[in-house]
Amino acid sequence: MSTDKSQRHNKRMQRHKEVVDAKIEQADIERGVVIVITGNGKGKTTSALGTLLRSLGHGHHCTLVQFIKGQWDCGETRFFADPSCSLNRNLTTFTMDTGFTWNTQDFDSDKQATEQVWQQALPFFSDPDCRLIVLDEINYMFKYKYLDINDLLQAIDNRPAQQNIIITGRGAPKALLDIADTVSKIQPVKHAFNQGIKAQEGIEW
Amino acid sequence: MSTDKSQRHNKRMQRHKEVVDAKIEQADIERGVVIVITGNGKGKTTSALGTLLRSLGHGHHCTLVQFIKGQWDCGETRFFADPSCSLNRNLTTFTMDTGFTWNTQDFDSDKQATEQVWQQALPFFSDPDCRLIVLDEINYMFKYKYLDINDLLQAIDNRPAQQNIIITGRGAPKALLDIADTVSKIQPVKHAFNQGIKAQEGIEW
Repeated sequence: MSTDKSQRHNKRMQRHKEVVDAKIEQADIERGVVIVITGNGKGKTTSALGTLLRSLGHGHHCTLVQFIKGQWDCGETRFFADPSCSLNRNLTTFTMDTGFTWNTQDFDSDKQATEQVWQQALPFFSDPDCRLIVLDEINYMFKYKYLDINDLLQAIDNRPAQQNIIITGRGAPKALLDIADTVSKIQPVKHAFNQGIKAQEGIEW
Repeated sequence: MSTDKSQRHNKRMQRHKEVVDAKIEQADIERGVVIVITGNGKGKTTSALGTLLRSLGHGHHCTLVQFIKGQWDCGETRFFADPSCSLNRNLTTFTMDTGFTWNTQDFDSDKQATEQVWQQALPFFSDPDCRLIVLDEINYMFKYKYLDINDLLQAIDNRPAQQNIIITGRGAPKALLDIADTVSKIQPVKHAFNQGIKAQEGIEW
């Protein structure tokens, strides 16, 4: 690139850096956050898993609660179950053992299974050692009335100050969006599945 | 719930299952996919990392190329560098060692660093054992003209049939969106940072 163009580029980058630095300076509140990842696009669960990996990488104690992907032979389940990995030992996982609700199709037993996994997760909301709780696909539980949104809001409200919460799933309830610190909505611009491409291990599960 | 309501719920779920099953039946093409995760919301890199974890969990060989987060003390870097974890051995990582471009602000050296990491990544696009390549934050490289989009398109086009590619970063070029199988756009509904909450380890890095 010409010296002139190159210098203009460098100046633009300098201004960009100043803007970013000023924003970093202003953000000085230190506390745990509530992140909601919703929308109909691909990437909600994987985004939560990526953040979980990040937190585990720093040696944090984390909890993963999977509400509807339990029965599948998921890559993440295999990864986190690997006993050779010492960082995995800081992770506690709970899985609803009925799998996808449209495979069981029984309201009463699904509601019971949801309540059971929720009761297992609850103590972690009052554990100051637990730095991150991922509630994967919990939004379906509110939609199907297996779980009361107020129970979650109360648990979030009473949690330790440094604890982070990540909630994934389509159709996050408004009450949850209102109290969240970060909300990302994933739009499905296009999806391989709709072009006839088969779901595959390592991508979809 | 009343038996009546419960039965209606079960019937709705049955219909839902039929729709899903029919779609699964139709999707019968077996090949690797190109996934683009773009938009300004939080969750692009973590989504790619989550899918990487999933693929590694199935024992696949994977390659992670990080274009701008190299110098940071990331949780994912720490996790993947853990020698105790046997699944990590299937992962090859390359990182641009200049860090964020607005920290170096030198067009020529940044372009050189980009080309170097691209040359390292290139052989994996012709390696049939490599099941997944993640190109994290590569879109900035096109924006700043450090890399030519046609080089990427050609590598994608010539890759082994079963290889998956994930590309993350704001402002994905149109030519990339056109050839992608799956495109997710992450909208930033809100972000903790804009409410003065400090970035923290395990969430932002």
